[in-house]
Amino acid sequence: MGKMKFEAGKAFAEHLDEKDELASFRNAFIISDPNLIYLDGNSLGRLPKATPAKIHKVIEEQWGHHLIKGWNADWYEAPSRIGEKIAKLAGAAPGQVLVSDSTSVNLFKLILAAMKLQPNRHRIVSDVFNFPSDLYILQGCVNLLGDSYKLDLVQSRDNITINQQDLLAAIDEDTAIVSLSHVAFKSGFIYDAEFITRHAHEKGALVLWDLCHSIGAVPVELDRWQADFAVGCTYKYLNGGPGSPAFLYVSARLQAKAISPIWGWFSQRAPFAFDLEYQPADGIRRFICSTPPILSLLAVESALDPLLEVGIQSIRRKSIKQTSYLIYLIDQILVPLGFKLGSPRDPDLRGSHVSIQHANAYQINQAMIREAMVVPDFREPDNIRLGLASLYTSYTEVWEAVERIKQIMIKELYRKYPAERAAVT
Amino acid sequence: MGKMKFEAGKAFAEHLDEKDELASFRNAFIISDPNLIYLDGNSLGRLPKATPAKIHKVIEEQWGHHLIKGWNADWYEAPSRIGEKIAKLAGAAPGQVLVSDSTSVNLFKLILAAMKLQPNRHRIVSDVFNFPSDLYILQGCVNLLGDSYKLDLVQSRDNITINQQDLLAAIDEDTAIVSLSHVAFKSGFIYDAEFITRHAHEKGALVLWDLCHSIGAVPVELDRWQADFAVGCTYKYLNGGPGSPAFLYVSARLQAKAISPIWGWFSQRAPFAFDLEYQPADGIRRFICSTPPILSLLAVESALDPLLEVGIQSIRRKSIKQTSYLIYLIDQILVPLGFKLGSPRDPDLRGSHVSIQHANAYQINQAMIREAMVVPDFREPDNIRLGLASLYTSYTEVWEAVERIKQIMIKELYRKYPAERAAVT
Repeated sequence: MGKMKFEAGKAFAEHLDEKDELASFRNAFIISDPNLIYLDGNSLGRLPKATPAKIHKVIEEQWGHHLIKGWNADWYEAPSRIGEKIAKLAGAAPGQVLVSDSTSVNLFKLILAAMKLQPNRHRIVSDVFNFPSDLYILQGCVNLLGDSYKLDLVQSRDNITINQQDLLAAIDEDTAIVSLSHVAFKSGFIYDAEFITRHAHEKGALVLWDLCHSIGAVPVELDRWQADFAVGCTYKYLNGGPGSPAFLYVSARLQAKAISPIWGWFSQRAPFAFDLEYQPADGIRRFICSTPPILSLLAVESALDPLLEVGIQSIRRKSIKQTSYLIYLIDQILVPLGFKLGSPRDPDLRGSHVSIQHANAYQINQAMIREAMVVPDFREPDNIRLGLASLYTSYTEVWEAVERIKQIMIKELYRKYPAERAAVT
Repeated sequence: MGKMKFEAGKAFAEHLDEKDELASFRNAFIISDPNLIYLDGNSLGRLPKATPAKIHKVIEEQWGHHLIKGWNADWYEAPSRIGEKIAKLAGAAPGQVLVSDSTSVNLFKLILAAMKLQPNRHRIVSDVFNFPSDLYILQGCVNLLGDSYKLDLVQSRDNITINQQDLLAAIDEDTAIVSLSHVAFKSGFIYDAEFITRHAHEKGALVLWDLCHSIGAVPVELDRWQADFAVGCTYKYLNGGPGSPAFLYVSARLQAKAISPIWGWFSQRAPFAFDLEYQPADGIRRFICSTPPILSLLAVESALDPLLEVGIQSIRRKSIKQTSYLIYLIDQILVPLGFKLGSPRDPDLRGSHVSIQHANAYQINQAMIREAMVVPDFREPDNIRLGLASLYTSYTEVWEAVERIKQIMIKELYRKYPAERAAVT
């Protein structure tokens, strides 16, 4: 892509939008208020235009009219069918991905499956940049497994990245599995997953990648990386809707010997034989659990179409250009106003969101939402995340967001908001 | 209710409908084809009329327009809020029920929580009439816990009921938990849950009730029974929609000392503090796991309103009358055609479905669906379940269903359907 040159005026943003080959895909989403700049697609993706009609059909036609027959017609195979669509975004050959449960439950299943494959190893290695939600699951697994098990977290040296050598140094002969987030939720730091996986394997450790902040935003190549396991959610860059079910990946290499600790009936070899003894199905299906939430599940299916049509390489190109442009504007406009960049400058080390840091970040975040119609999200202690979902975020929105933040700072609009944290954010 | 007198003619069914005080609640459901007799509300409840508008609002207004703010406004508290509605049908005081995950995952969480509360006990007691899906979860728990743990299943003497003395005799000083289905999915046999719970407690065992086939159909009094744990689904008699998320109950007595093995971030004391160390929330919330599937979850909320308006006692009265009427017709019309009753005759021992048995049941079940527009379901080896959801099933439908089965038998219409089982049913 070469060195990018940007200018600070609005006309330049409009120029970038005019040249943007992906601009038309914004039309695939409901934009109910064009004045609202939504920079939180990394928490909850926008509503795809196809979704309301799809769910209307599921409710009225499949449930309302076909009733129980909906299971045979469309629902029973949906976890695998939608899994295969996600597999295309995850660089996974067929038969290795399915949609099931939540990210947390999937992580729990796969970590315990991994520990069982590694009976003589007792350590789980992760890092302090992993989702706290993932760390909680890992802590729960260690608690369940007993006192001889241990979770070790690699620290960050610069509070933005994890030094990959530090990570590799933490993996030893007792390490059963390395469980990492591909893109760090706070700084957006992105691991070289292939590099980490290869070196972990050299030490005999398995590797699990949490793709929540990368799937649909950056290229994921699970098969090429030789990843063992992966999990991810579908409600961020995949636009599946609030709390839509998660996905999991188990490498074909491991499927015959790995087993989920939750012996759910959908993972039974013949679920409708109603045998009294559990027999796991062959293949990836043994990692599903039980009856999936169909409305939330099928909303994922149509949401994936624009992403698959565009292709992840095109999205990544635009995303790098947009985050680079945003960092240029941050340097020009927000750093003089007291902000610090909280994300890597090297685009190869960065996902699709950019964090800015400020001592008053919690208050500024509230002012952005309530005064300026810009929706980012806040992450303790001082991070405001600006998520760019390149399928629908325009360059003009990026420019306008920075302009509005500038106004908040100049007019000190954030001062009227409390610094005390609310229970729910 | 006294001894009920029935007549075999259609006019009598119409007479019962005219006198039925609950008849108008059928209007709360979408009946897209009045000729279809749907007797599978015990697998997937009908679509409530309020649901499409509710989900339309969730998608277009909450997700599409409010975007991430939907979490604060309506979604975050939904698992507890909807749990409290279900609690009213479950005889549970506030703060003990929430909606989360699937029945299987909830069962897994609560069984492992129970085993941890009973460190010196190694047996789980259940019966052969429990859902195979529950037995698989119990087997998985035993497998996870190790070789010193054991699952024991009480047998049935008559293939319709479980002798309660047999069950009590199986509970000993090594029994950590008794895990039973309140209503058996195949025969409809209903346990005296209060009696079983009391005697299990006398032996120091905890008790978990699976309410999938009873909630919304028969009175459930978890607090009065002194139940320890319960799980249940919302897509059968609660009409929450295909795969809608399940609920769980943990007695207030146990909440402070019990803990879920799956340390999900929604169960964290302060989930948005993003602390790196898990600290379980107080109360029932520590048993939720993570981000719930909002579309499927909120469909449950409005679906509960007709049930709460009618009240479970009225539903039970009608259900007993309807299943008694159905058994009368089975005796009169279907037994002479080779069927056997597969459910208890005593209404106190019976939930809201009636099973009929026949050597050709698999074929007859197919003919009912394809030739006769009657939808029951088949359960191996020879059961056809006729589920009566008294909120919307009419007496005339009961009469008409038996009449249509009679025609299938007389004309031998079932013979053209294969006896070989399909993989999915």
